[in-house]
Amino acid sequence: GDSRDLKLVEKWEKVANGVFRTVVGNHDGEMHYSDLAAASPKIETLNRLPDVPISKALKSASFRLLADGKVLVRIPTEPGEKIYGYGLQFDNTMKSGQIVELKVDHFKKGGGATHAPVPFYISSKGYGVLFNTAKYIKIHNQVGSRKDSKHNPEEVDRNPPADEKQAGPWLALPPGDAVEAFIHGKGLEMVGFTGTSFQDIVARYNLFSGGGAMPPLWGLGFWHRTPAKYSAEQTAAEIAEFDQHRIPLDVIGLEPGWQSKSYPCTYEWQKKRFPDPGKFAKQLLDDGIRLNLWVNPYISKHSRIYEKMKPLSGSHLVWLGIVPDYTLPEARQLLVDQHKEDHFDIGISGYKIDECDGYDFWLWPDYATFPSGTSAEVMRQTYGMQLQSLMHKELFVKNNQRTYSQVRASNGAASSYPFVIYSDSYGHNQYVTGLSSASLSGILWCPEIRSARNEREWINRMHTVCFSPLAQLNAWASKTKPWSYKNATDAVRNTIELRMQLLPYLYTAFANYNQQGIPPVRSMLLETGEGKDQSKEQERKLDGETDPYADGFHQKITEDNSLYMFGPDILVAPFLNNSTKRQVQLPAGNWYDFYTGKLLGNGNKITITAKQFNDLPPLLVKEGALIPMLTKSVMRTKDIQGAAIEIRHYGKKDGTCQLYEDDGQSYDFEKGAYTLRTFALESGQLKQKIVKKGAKPLYGDVSLRQMTK
Amino acid sequence: GDSRDLKLVEKWEKVANGVFRTVVGNHDGEMHYSDLAAASPKIETLNRLPDVPISKALKSASFRLLADGKVLVRIPTEPGEKIYGYGLQFDNTMKSGQIVELKVDHFKKGGGATHAPVPFYISSKGYGVLFNTAKYIKIHNQVGSRKDSKHNPEEVDRNPPADEKQAGPWLALPPGDAVEAFIHGKGLEMVGFTGTSFQDIVARYNLFSGGGAMPPLWGLGFWHRTPAKYSAEQTAAEIAEFDQHRIPLDVIGLEPGWQSKSYPCTYEWQKKRFPDPGKFAKQLLDDGIRLNLWVNPYISKHSRIYEKMKPLSGSHLVWLGIVPDYTLPEARQLLVDQHKEDHFDIGISGYKIDECDGYDFWLWPDYATFPSGTSAEVMRQTYGMQLQSLMHKELFVKNNQRTYSQVRASNGAASSYPFVIYSDSYGHNQYVTGLSSASLSGILWCPEIRSARNEREWINRMHTVCFSPLAQLNAWASKTKPWSYKNATDAVRNTIELRMQLLPYLYTAFANYNQQGIPPVRSMLLETGEGKDQSKEQERKLDGETDPYADGFHQKITEDNSLYMFGPDILVAPFLNNSTKRQVQLPAGNWYDFYTGKLLGNGNKITITAKQFNDLPPLLVKEGALIPMLTKSVMRTKDIQGAAIEIRHYGKKDGTCQLYEDDGQSYDFEKGAYTLRTFALESGQLKQKIVKKGAKPLYGDVSLRQMTK
Repeated sequence: GDSRDLKLVEKWEKVANGVFRTVVGNHDGEMHYSDLAAASPKIETLNRLPDVPISKALKSASFRLLADGKVLVRIPTEPGEKIYGYGLQFDNTMKSGQIVELKVDHFKKGGGATHAPVPFYISSKGYGVLFNTAKYIKIHNQVGSRKDSKHNPEEVDRNPPADEKQAGPWLALPPGDAVEAFIHGKGLEMVGFTGTSFQDIVARYNLFSGGGAMPPLWGLGFWHRTPAKYSAEQTAAEIAEFDQHRIPLDVIGLEPGWQSKSYPCTYEWQKKRFPDPGKFAKQLLDDGIRLNLWVNPYISKHSRIYEKMKPLSGSHLVWLGIVPDYTLPEARQLLVDQHKEDHFDIGISGYKIDECDGYDFWLWPDYATFPSGTSAEVMRQTYGMQLQSLMHKELFVKNNQRTYSQVRASNGAASSYPFVIYSDSYGHNQYVTGLSSASLSGILWCPEIRSARNEREWINRMHTVCFSPLAQLNAWASKTKPWSYKNATDAVRNTIELRMQLLPYLYTAFANYNQQGIPPVRSMLLETGEGKDQSKEQERKLDGETDPYADGFHQKITEDNSLYMFGPDILVAPFLNNSTKRQVQLPAGNWYDFYTGKLLGNGNKITITAKQFNDLPPLLVKEGALIPMLTKSVMRTKDIQGAAIEIRHYGKKDGTCQLYEDDGQSYDFEKGAYTLRTFALESGQLKQKIVKKGAKPLYGDVSLRQMTK
Repeated sequence: GDSRDLKLVEKWEKVANGVFRTVVGNHDGEMHYSDLAAASPKIETLNRLPDVPISKALKSASFRLLADGKVLVRIPTEPGEKIYGYGLQFDNTMKSGQIVELKVDHFKKGGGATHAPVPFYISSKGYGVLFNTAKYIKIHNQVGSRKDSKHNPEEVDRNPPADEKQAGPWLALPPGDAVEAFIHGKGLEMVGFTGTSFQDIVARYNLFSGGGAMPPLWGLGFWHRTPAKYSAEQTAAEIAEFDQHRIPLDVIGLEPGWQSKSYPCTYEWQKKRFPDPGKFAKQLLDDGIRLNLWVNPYISKHSRIYEKMKPLSGSHLVWLGIVPDYTLPEARQLLVDQHKEDHFDIGISGYKIDECDGYDFWLWPDYATFPSGTSAEVMRQTYGMQLQSLMHKELFVKNNQRTYSQVRASNGAASSYPFVIYSDSYGHNQYVTGLSSASLSGILWCPEIRSARNEREWINRMHTVCFSPLAQLNAWASKTKPWSYKNATDAVRNTIELRMQLLPYLYTAFANYNQQGIPPVRSMLLETGEGKDQSKEQERKLDGETDPYADGFHQKITEDNSLYMFGPDILVAPFLNNSTKRQVQLPAGNWYDFYTGKLLGNGNKITITAKQFNDLPPLLVKEGALIPMLTKSVMRTKDIQGAAIEIRHYGKKDGTCQLYEDDGQSYDFEKGAYTLRTFALESGQLKQKIVKKGAKPLYGDVSLRQMTK
């Protein structure tokens, strides 16, 4: 019963600079998340990064195969070390002192179960760990003390007599000295990452996962999902209304009613609502509007692929539909052929793949069986990735068309999939936290807007979604439109237009994600590192009824997920819910008002108001930033072709920026068909340098705009 | 991937009338809950019950050993069949349509994790199942549909065009046709029970578990737990205050501060607060007051048993204390010897064994190891039972002293332990639901009173706890006294006095629990059976933000846990929180006001008010009931010796009752040293019959009191 039973992990194989892999136990036949990545590790890019050695923690990692069929790994931590990550999490990004059970599931506050519970963490001591085996995993993050550890705190009496001094306060949760994780199985693969900063570690993780996703340009425009039972006619009328209200629009999402049957699904058009889908899709495409189709993975008896798919499906039904085993090539082919014929070939741009996550009662049970022999648990952890894989690779990449799609479940090593997660969670604070947490694990997150309790909240939520990886109004149930809150319509239009104007900046940030692994929308951790400890000691009040362990429970708060970075230079400080005022703890350096170029502060705490930004998104810009954006907004991304660019400069220092161009929709960029320019401000003059010239120009003239007087 | 892979469970061994046992897979070396029961199955008593055959469902049960190390069992259900149980649950007792993960843990609303997550369910079709292997178990209760099942509902389109008729409403949760359960392991034991009613099935389960617990008489008096840091002097002063306020009292519970160190514990007296524990305990005992000691299982370095216990403990610490492996006889002996010397021998009556349940972050991890080789998971599921076992068997039974104690964790086959569960859950509604749910699985539950938001709630909560298995005010943190709410003091005193008066009735009900397995405080299910279906179809409103699956989600409500039975004849209809009025759906038969004997109704819905009961507990009595009670209340249970009994008769029909007597504190009753009388009312005359005469008389004269005019 002590640590002498733990064996040292002896062999860490170097995969690339700063990337190390090991296997403990017998790992034959197990599925790795990295097997399901959209692309191979970008080894060359990794090897151009500094060759940092493996961290002390990884070298000290140990493991044990337990008699009851568990695999335990232990990675020691140092005093003060903090653990961050585990995918899309809505409560926080700092996981020290928490136990997480990583399982793909409908969201849950705390505990780890979420749509994208990536088993990847980053330590404040400069390394990261991916548990690369596709199983449920439970991780104690510095929770628990081993009997034989030398780092255990001293015992303290909880109720000492008045005359007895104690070593310190009694702690309900004595800090542990390791990350300990286990799965049920015979073996486990781990991939360790070391780097020079949080951002560097995340980038290496993303590069190991094949790089970041590269959406088509249209994917970054504005999206709107129509109510579930809308017809072609109603959809066309709604697009016309967008035009009348001068609201930019690129993508229309059709909800379940487009199918002849759904829940379970046929994937075939409901002809009473869409009598001629091909004509309808073409008409929209001609106008620059893409269609995205809602699906879920469960197939109806009324689908023409049902009979062939049935023997290729699992033992249990979900919503009475069969559950295809997409580890089988025949099953993938069946779906892809049908989707190509019915959707892709008429111009459908992508999917919203719903309900591949949970809850338990909406999924196959953990004891379901599948014809390939893949376990229900592995299937649960990877189904979202399998669906992304088959649609991305076999439908879109194969046909040299980029997609930007949505999916309800993802997991490890998924950064190269152009699929964005969304949720039924609707807390504004949670949505903003999701933007930070997702960025630490190669996940794209859409804090979609659905409805609001009032005009103010509508504006604030529109800010958040327009400064996220995917700007979508999802009105499938609420039937809201951008103009539903009358007095907010101008603010909403201005916000969406601002996103459109910023597309050159955002698209370039995505290119950086794709090639260098730097997330386009990201946690402040990746900007500032751990920063100084802004911890507050929270003395909780003892309450015998609701919180009997509160006395002596010291909780340190060391993270601020209320801010995040949008691209390399813009800090977003959202007003949550219906607030119009907030405090912002600025990182070091000068920060400027995006709109006026005025200095707002430097490393201090400031108060900002919605009024000061004229109800536009509260954006702060870094000293010396150059921000390339459209001089004027456009109604469709197709209108960007040839549009003039202004590069806004903030502050007094010189700076640089990149500007990326390609055809916006094919995978030719992977073969070099892109253009990358850098701009540098030198003594008030903008100097252009062409790093790579491989594509026809996308933008027109480029001019400089000095924002700070 | 279909049900042909399931194998029929072929061999059900008959254990006794209506009790059947089977093992699937390889079960060598696994721990059964029944191995940990306080007593052997009462086979003779079982065999005096009707010899009902095994149910069709059990005969149709099937299983599968899964490739990833799971054992699955499937027990089919019929349309309309309902599933109840799974131990102490605070949300409901009916579990059809729910998935439960049964794991000993701090309470959680829904999901199954609780202090006593007993893997035993009862079906409305007249049978019960105990999953008798001590592991985490996850159970789908009619949730999920197999592809090849013949009972699956028809597919329905969720968004049909207006002109398309559907087979029915779209269901978010199509009903399943089985209970399917799995554990990680190689085999699983199940015990099936069949009976003639819910009560009969529960009784057989309890008899299989060794019968129901038999507390000492003093255990049924009033308990008070003093604040955590109270000294002997303060405790004595508090007892004197009880006397001044004429509040009955039998047990004082000392909280952590009685120990020299706690969290982790020494189990040794804090001499600064209790300079002479032996003298103190004797002084209290002479006054008829018992002491109960708070402990938790984690041992401090400062305890004299620490050094010897250390090698007998697990790999991990809890609150920095070692975790003894009590599957080892040496470890048990160490603890028992110390407890006997320091506690038992000076007259300590029992323990409150805290924090043996969870949360995860307050327990050893699932990958901890123990010197006996027992897995952390098995240890977690059984630790509460192991502690009950060692204290009950090796300290109290061995020394022929009954205890009535408290414990924070229990599990299957535990009915014969005189330990009562308590919780930090403090919802009044949840507490009342707990009284029902606990009674379905051999668990005793104490909805202890701690504090209240106002006088009304204080009275209502006092009613609940005084009409429960253990009447305790737990003031360790709140420091409240029975008289803390001034205007409520009379109502509180009256309520406690009523409990004291009813002890002959309650003690007899416990004797019935002990000998026949009928729970003394119990769910209406055990009174009325499933009853007529009072289900309401709840159409939930679609809400795209918070409840997107609501449309077509039909929830049937078929249970009423707001009422419960206290002994065979008294129905308790508590006013929750600060309410003073409620509706009561009466079961069939005439029901009478306990205090006035007036007819209140018969099978109908009535409204009752606190006023109508003069702030006394809202008690209704069954037609023909005979209720033996003390003519006058007493301040201590010791004063019951020789006290006069009145047997109250309600309604117009003749009736019978039992009256049980023994020495109130030893186990001699097990060797026949008890007296059991029955009283029958025949034409207005009370006829006494002595069933068994083995003990000295406890009560004095018996008289009849006609309550109904």
